[in-house]
Amino acid sequence: MRRLLVEDLVRVALFEDLGRGGDLTTEAIVDAGREASADIVARAGGTIAGHDAAHAAFSMLDPRAAYEVRVPDGTAAAAGECVAVVRGNARALMTAERTALNFLCRLSGIATATRCLVDAVGEHSARITCTRKTTPGLRVLEKYAVRCGGGYNHRFGLDDAALIKDNHIALAGGVAEAIQAVLGRVGHMVKVEVEIDTLEQLRDALAFPIDAVLFDNMTLPILRDAVTVAGGRVLTEASGGITLERIPEIAATGVDLISVGWITHSAPALDLGLDVSVKGVSSC
Amino acid sequence: MRRLLVEDLVRVALFEDLGRGGDLTTEAIVDAGREASADIVARAGGTIAGHDAAHAAFSMLDPRAAYEVRVPDGTAAAAGECVAVVRGNARALMTAERTALNFLCRLSGIATATRCLVDAVGEHSARITCTRKTTPGLRVLEKYAVRCGGGYNHRFGLDDAALIKDNHIALAGGVAEAIQAVLGRVGHMVKVEVEIDTLEQLRDALAFPIDAVLFDNMTLPILRDAVTVAGGRVLTEASGGITLERIPEIAATGVDLISVGWITHSAPALDLGLDVSVKGVSSC
Amino acid sequence: MRRLLVEDLVRVALFEDLGRGGDLTTEAIVDAGREASADIVARAGGTIAGHDAAHAAFSMLDPRAAYEVRVPDGTAAAAGECVAVVRGNARALMTAERTALNFLCRLSGIATATRCLVDAVGEHSARITCTRKTTPGLRVLEKYAVRCGGGYNHRFGLDDAALIKDNHIALAGGVAEAIQAVLGRVGHMVKVEVEIDTLEQLRDALAFPIDAVLFDNMTLPILRDAVTVAGGRVLTEASGGITLERIPEIAATGVDLISVGWITHSAPALDLGLDVSVKGVSSC
Amino acid sequence: MRRLLVEDLVRVALFEDLGRGGDLTTEAIVDAGREASADIVARAGGTIAGHDAAHAAFSMLDPRAAYEVRVPDGTAAAAGECVAVVRGNARALMTAERTALNFLCRLSGIATATRCLVDAVGEHSARITCTRKTTPGLRVLEKYAVRCGGGYNHRFGLDDAALIKDNHIALAGGVAEAIQAVLGRVGHMVKVEVEIDTLEQLRDALAFPIDAVLFDNMTLPILRDAVTVAGGRVLTEASGGITLERIPEIAATGVDLISVGWITHSAPALDLGLDVSVKGVSSC
Amino acid sequence: MRRLLVEDLVRVALFEDLGRGGDLTTEAIVDAGREASADIVARAGGTIAGHDAAHAAFSMLDPRAAYEVRVPDGTAAAAGECVAVVRGNARALMTAERTALNFLCRLSGIATATRCLVDAVGEHSARITCTRKTTPGLRVLEKYAVRCGGGYNHRFGLDDAALIKDNHIALAGGVAEAIQAVLGRVGHMVKVEVEIDTLEQLRDALAFPIDAVLFDNMTLPILRDAVTVAGGRVLTEASGGITLERIPEIAATGVDLISVGWITHSAPALDLGLDVSVKGVSSC
Amino acid sequence: MRRLLVEDLVRVALFEDLGRGGDLTTEAIVDAGREASADIVARAGGTIAGHDAAHAAFSMLDPRAAYEVRVPDGTAAAAGECVAVVRGNARALMTAERTALNFLCRLSGIATATRCLVDAVGEHSARITCTRKTTPGLRVLEKYAVRCGGGYNHRFGLDDAALIKDNHIALAGGVAEAIQAVLGRVGHMVKVEVEIDTLEQLRDALAFPIDAVLFDNMTLPILRDAVTVAGGRVLTEASGGITLERIPEIAATGVDLISVGWITHSAPALDLGLDVSVKGVSSC
Repeated sequence: MRRLLVEDLVRVALFEDLGRGGDLTTEAIVDAGREASADIVARAGGTIAGHDAAHAAFSMLDPRAAYEVRVPDGTAAAAGECVAVVRGNARALMTAERTALNFLCRLSGIATATRCLVDAVGEHSARITCTRKTTPGLRVLEKYAVRCGGGYNHRFGLDDAALIKDNHIALAGGVAEAIQAVLGRVGHMVKVEVEIDTLEQLRDALAFPIDAVLFDNMTLPILRDAVTVAGGRVLTEASGGITLERIPEIAATGVDLISVGWITHSAPALDLGLDVSVKGVSSC
Repeated sequence: MRRLLVEDLVRVALFEDLGRGGDLTTEAIVDAGREASADIVARAGGTIAGHDAAHAAFSMLDPRAAYEVRVPDGTAAAAGECVAVVRGNARALMTAERTALNFLCRLSGIATATRCLVDAVGEHSARITCTRKTTPGLRVLEKYAVRCGGGYNHRFGLDDAALIKDNHIALAGGVAEAIQAVLGRVGHMVKVEVEIDTLEQLRDALAFPIDAVLFDNMTLPILRDAVTVAGGRVLTEASGGITLERIPEIAATGVDLISVGWITHSAPALDLGLDVSVKGVSSC
Repeated sequence: MRRLLVEDLVRVALFEDLGRGGDLTTEAIVDAGREASADIVARAGGTIAGHDAAHAAFSMLDPRAAYEVRVPDGTAAAAGECVAVVRGNARALMTAERTALNFLCRLSGIATATRCLVDAVGEHSARITCTRKTTPGLRVLEKYAVRCGGGYNHRFGLDDAALIKDNHIALAGGVAEAIQAVLGRVGHMVKVEVEIDTLEQLRDALAFPIDAVLFDNMTLPILRDAVTVAGGRVLTEASGGITLERIPEIAATGVDLISVGWITHSAPALDLGLDVSVKGVSSC
Repeated sequence: MRRLLVEDLVRVALFEDLGRGGDLTTEAIVDAGREASADIVARAGGTIAGHDAAHAAFSMLDPRAAYEVRVPDGTAAAAGECVAVVRGNARALMTAERTALNFLCRLSGIATATRCLVDAVGEHSARITCTRKTTPGLRVLEKYAVRCGGGYNHRFGLDDAALIKDNHIALAGGVAEAIQAVLGRVGHMVKVEVEIDTLEQLRDALAFPIDAVLFDNMTLPILRDAVTVAGGRVLTEASGGITLERIPEIAATGVDLISVGWITHSAPALDLGLDVSVKGVSSC
Repeated sequence: MRRLLVEDLVRVALFEDLGRGGDLTTEAIVDAGREASADIVARAGGTIAGHDAAHAAFSMLDPRAAYEVRVPDGTAAAAGECVAVVRGNARALMTAERTALNFLCRLSGIATATRCLVDAVGEHSARITCTRKTTPGLRVLEKYAVRCGGGYNHRFGLDDAALIKDNHIALAGGVAEAIQAVLGRVGHMVKVEVEIDTLEQLRDALAFPIDAVLFDNMTLPILRDAVTVAGGRVLTEASGGITLERIPEIAATGVDLISVGWITHSAPALDLGLDVSVKGVSSC
Repeated sequence: MRRLLVEDLVRVALFEDLGRGGDLTTEAIVDAGREASADIVARAGGTIAGHDAAHAAFSMLDPRAAYEVRVPDGTAAAAGECVAVVRGNARALMTAERTALNFLCRLSGIATATRCLVDAVGEHSARITCTRKTTPGLRVLEKYAVRCGGGYNHRFGLDDAALIKDNHIALAGGVAEAIQAVLGRVGHMVKVEVEIDTLEQLRDALAFPIDAVLFDNMTLPILRDAVTVAGGRVLTEASGGITLERIPEIAATGVDLISVGWITHSAPALDLGLDVSVKGVSSC
């Protein structure tokens, strides 16, 4: 199914790039029947994600294109390392290049950023998790890239779990009111998490059979207290202003989860390029 | 037409976030008929882009929602400034929040990054221009965000102009061969640009009626020479390794265009948040 | 969002009924500008669901059509009772009739069947819940109809909760193996339920932090024991061979949930008809 | 073409079931490369329809899945009989199971109901025919299931034949007026049928070159008279309140067609299940 | 429904014309808020068809655009006559112009060609009818244009009537075999027409309860005989090599229908232009 | 990519022709497993275009159908010549026939008309070019057919080049104003052409760095003067009232381009037919 989704997204991207007229430059220069080989090379080191999208881009233009993975999704590539080799129709390689790389660089950028944070957690037990701050239309792929980087996924959307946030609490008139409303309405297979600003709110919340609490933008001492109060009865999650530098001290508080929006919305793309071999022989 | 495209993209994004079950939390807590007001506030300073997408997200869930722009697209918001006020059904505001912000933060991030570079050009005549390194599916919106930041757009795709790159030249067997192939095939309304690595290539290229040359990753001295050789007969474009710090010296060479991939593929999202007013009164 | 989904489904259904040539009969007989009124009448008693789909069918052909609900979704209509009155273009009423009724009769049939079972539970605390045995393409609407009938929704799909079934256990090599695999992989916002065939399996399962257990096709005595063993630590669900007659005794075992596939896959449609008033005056 | 339509419908159904996150349970438990075999078994006896949809569901997740039909569409399966064997990727079998069965059970339910009525007609010449009371989006498949059960198809939509119903007659001001309006407008390849309530109306209608008459909810004696009056000059169709018990006496009146809405809108699904073989060996 | 189909087609056409970048010329020249008026003028005389598509093109870019029909669909416009006046946003008028005219000119061309043939029939009773030789994707609109020109529609597709053609007869092994196969399989609401090459074939065909016969490329004398043999028992249709000049003599044979492919596949577009009024005042 | 677009268009066309019920006639007559061969024959001479669409139509109904091109796209077929042979499932050949031919006849008609004009240019250097007056939805295919006929393509849409027309000039308040507005706004890869009515306008326009001028409906003497004034500094294009007869004298003026709308909007379809071989042996 993931395959079908990836194909849909790649198809949209190819039509977006090729427009009505197709690749004017390549069609003028490269013979229709010419075959070629191309290396996808990491210009900088990082964790790779998105081979299936890159593969789909080439296959859509040349169904017989062979895409050989050298550095699989979820593993690290060094700067200069060849992460995949593609062989097939030369026009197809040239024309699909940008689309393939646009997916691969973005998703590898997310995996790389996630991996950095995961490594910073070190021996602590906290999991790095993403948010719903994803690129419109690409959420499934970006959440996958987070997993490739060693992270975990939070909700995929507003419908697969309940998360009571500050605006909800304000509208409901209090933490207890909000939690009661949600517990009375959602199905038995839906987990419930509550955003907590103060220890008092936390104690109120713990009176109910909720599954997790989210500590947003707490100072380190208060976060520590909050984890203690939660006492393992619910999962604890820290979020807000998470930087690479702060990860170790946050993880050290004992929170179960650290959620970070910027690994999906602001991770810089990983620099990957495609080198076509004129002789059709990969140098990898 | 842009309106129709924006609506299509926002619709996809809303379905992606709402899934099959809708906003479980909000529907449990907020009465169906409740009205509310919400402020969209810049948590950091930057240049705004994407109000129409944000507006569409709210309108799609509440067709009567009123979206009042305070800081229009293409202008600067200070940290803490309210960039828009939305009024309408409280559920719609809560449910569309993330989708609206996902568009607005990303596009404003691109506009902000572009504006930085444009300002760095200063008195020089160079234009900052984007590339095809855009998010799959969002190219039209991201190119618009570049314009909001004061930048200019390069090709929208492979079909609206010809750009002969190093891989093309290698496959054609030389600059002259590549240019001739293209000039003989493309329609009379298609411009032709050629990527140039050396001054010798540049002289070869200038023998043909081309429209622009792209200097990729040249050192400053060679770039200066290349601009001199071009002599105003064709447009000159510098690209590759462009950082904010290097913009002034590159612009000082007299190039007409400086193209930068990272303003679309790696610009950090601008931090914007939505504050719901419980009393339905905007604090802006 | 539900509105957008309903409109999509109704649009497909209208195109399916109107084909390329449109409503040949009505266009030949009824003047284009004629206005009319029509009553939607319950030919048999039941619980109504699906007014928004019926409304959308008429509105799509006559955007100014007025659809007045007399018996709202989730409430009971007596045989002969008028559940809605539509006023608008006479052609639109005639042409949209079948599409509107095909949605309304099916969804009301589901609501009616669900309501029967819910009433049979009586004073017991068990909730009636549906399954994934829904009509392809109509799951969201059918799950809504279940709620209209007083029932609760189980998973909306394979991705919003984990349900370990007998085939999974067989492939995993045991209950414990299956549960461990799932707990180690799914996100922290995902609930886990396990299908249980024997009390021994149940005891094995309860060693893990799961959320619910599903007792499939158990005899009444064993079901009673199983609920006792579960001891309120997890939610308990009975399924398999549930008939209206058996509901009271099953509910009496103290299970939390009774899931029934046939309320969505085999509930007979509720008989509703549309009576057009020649004089344009509703008789309701 | 049917193949393309089936693939479209199955694709929608799979996305509906898999959502954004895919089959959480199966992916956690079953190895990606594992192969398996599964039997689709009839839990109750009935007539099978819909193998191509079931096949498509498995193939879409595993293009190399082999689907071997044991009881073809249109033939009877005994309770306990294996109707098909599927071999392929174990995850694909588990994940597509519900979608495949949702199609197969519904369509087989329709075929089974139709077959019951067809058998009840016995030696009489009447054909059982369906109506437009079908599930939104599935009309083509459901009409096919009717044919699998030995029934015949009525109109596929409002555009492939004219059927003048009571509401049309009322709006036209009489049977003759309605018929004349239709005959003067429709193309020469369009058949015309008229709903008849009384013998007088029938005589009025027979004055025109119509193709068929529909007797709705007539008593048996009047129906007999009506068939006599029609005298073979037009096809005669009985509808309304058709039950299995009444079929023989209605058929005995000599009507050419008996149309029944409930074989599509209220036929209970045929109970079919999928048994996965852990050892990858079908027990069929 | 026709409205929805027209909107879909117009939307596709607008996206096709506007691409990713929109109307570069108009956006550079015309202020966003400017209002204008434009006249759609017939440069040559003809019968108009397609106002709803033209209207939709303008409305899609400016929902408040007013489109005033001066020469309605199905009526004649003289050369130089204003057929419609549009008022609205000046950019919208300029940008939608070509799309609106592409529909209007093509459909009016079909209506005009049809009207010519219909007029040539004169006092004879023959109807001019179209075929399935239509533009891919535009069949419903083109069949409508035929009706605007006074013609009648043949089958809309392969599924709304049976037409046994020479290739079918060859594959069946004879006229009688082909007819029997069809009569035994199609539903009771499906008409059957048979292509006839010789009088002998005609006599064979008339032995069956068919609805119409198609005489393809017959000489005038044989056509006359064939009509006589048919004797009013079935509808008769002449086709093949029908020119404007031959219409009267063919109609004089007494055939009921004359079908002409070229009124849809080769009718020259009617020349219509759009004149924008700079002062915003229509000159009509 | 062209392949994907062609498949999309063919799929729409097949669904349009097959509707809900499929090919009633063929399915009744031709056995499901029968194989056949069919020749696509040119009934009149012309230049062929569109084999890939015809091929796709057959392949979509029989993925193993073999389509052998005898007269390739862009080459001439004599009357009676076999342009392609298709082998495959007999039902698929019969059912896809009309769709395949509807594409092939239309596109070959455009190629044939273009080729006529190109041949009429003779020794002169003028290129025949098409316009945006294409069939809604088919622009890419029709522009391709123009190239098959030896013509060149003008803009594919409003976004790939700027063309300042008379209405733009009127709204801008003059040629110079319009050109300045456009040059200041469009990207550096966008060409600019200006429609010119008088020599004075031409001189005004040549003061700017534009790429081409369009002379609309000029008399021959003025056209000659205009070409002289342009003096090779910009490309010159003649349009308006171009007939086959006038091509030589227009070409003789030295214009670079002659654009003709009717080769796409009014070219008569090339007459091609499909002959099925009953014995499955092509006679070609």
